[in-house]
Amino acid sequence: MLIPEPVQRLIDAFARLPGVGPKTAARLTFYLLRGGEDLALELANALQELKTNTATCPQCFNITSAGRSLCEVCAHPQRDPTLLCVVEEPLDVLALERTGGFQGLYHVLDGALNPIEGIGPDDLRIRELTARVQAGSVQEVILATNPSIEGDATAMYIQQQLAPFGVRLTRLARGLPAGGDLEYADQNTLLRALAGRQNLGD
Amino acid sequence: MLIPEPVQRLIDAFARLPGVGPKTAARLTFYLLRGGEDLALELANALQELKTNTATCPQCFNITSAGRSLCEVCAHPQRDPTLLCVVEEPLDVLALERTGGFQGLYHVLDGALNPIEGIGPDDLRIRELTARVQAGSVQEVILATNPSIEGDATAMYIQQQLAPFGVRLTRLARGLPAGGDLEYADQNTLLRALAGRQNLGD
Repeated sequence: MLIPEPVQRLIDAFARLPGVGPKTAARLTFYLLRGGEDLALELANALQELKTNTATCPQCFNITSAGRSLCEVCAHPQRDPTLLCVVEEPLDVLALERTGGFQGLYHVLDGALNPIEGIGPDDLRIRELTARVQAGSVQEVILATNPSIEGDATAMYIQQQLAPFGVRLTRLARGLPAGGDLEYADQNTLLRALAGRQNLGD
Repeated sequence: MLIPEPVQRLIDAFARLPGVGPKTAARLTFYLLRGGEDLALELANALQELKTNTATCPQCFNITSAGRSLCEVCAHPQRDPTLLCVVEEPLDVLALERTGGFQGLYHVLDGALNPIEGIGPDDLRIRELTARVQAGSVQEVILATNPSIEGDATAMYIQQQLAPFGVRLTRLARGLPAGGDLEYADQNTLLRALAGRQNLGD
């Protein structure tokens, strides 16, 4: 009653975003109310054009600009088509691209297996992945799903699906994060780091 | 380069919100990309209508629906016009209204004095407050600015401005928060709680 309807409506919309509770939603809304009109309108326009001006790459299923036949990575002539990196989300592609250390192609699954939330193999782009590998040019598939229970389960499932094709299957290394502190590493990370210890001479 | 322009544009717009860094902005954007189109559009519409359908109450400067002459609190016949509560922001009005313990009217300053950020008395609704008090019906002004350096300075400044009018000036009590733990209270809070201790018989 006390909050004007247009204000309450924006608070409700913000609160539907992940990690934004009702208090944060109210704070953002009142910031926009006090702040210049341009930010609210810039946000509104960017939101409206988000879906209309973007598309999904038909090969790797990453986000790309509308009107392209393939995304920039897939269309790049210098990328190595024999190396395929399987990730859960478009944001994972960004993180890997930022390292500058990967020159192959990607395959975005659009999530990970999660029986509790009802996400099965058919909800992910696993059939499309199998088809890409079956097509023949891929020699190594890096299963770069998250180091979580769901990510591990997804990697294991894909491993089984791709086993018949005789490609090399790898998983990102697990261990201590760079700049991390051994003292604060959790048990699982430390166990993985121990199990995966490397010879100093290598 | 790798992020399509419409996606980057929304990330940049989100990142201009307070408390939203580039990583959170990217997370929100990709959530909207994956999620249903309705939330992105609902947000866009709510943002567009935020300013056009809201107005500032000409008496208390709280946010209200466009087209009203006074806000709901100012226009309410049961509210006590002799009691005026001065707050920094519209969100403070909401917090006080939620308590159900205040039946007077409000005055929203639109901030607090902050010399470092260049916010002086003329940037706040202090002249309008003086005029309201001068008009004569107000008997008590509760200075409910934040218990911060800026809030205290603002309250002190307003106290000086309103002194000639002979109204009662009060400030919200300072002490231990309800449900708090004495052991974890900071020094200043504890000092205030000690100084403001109350007789048990009262």
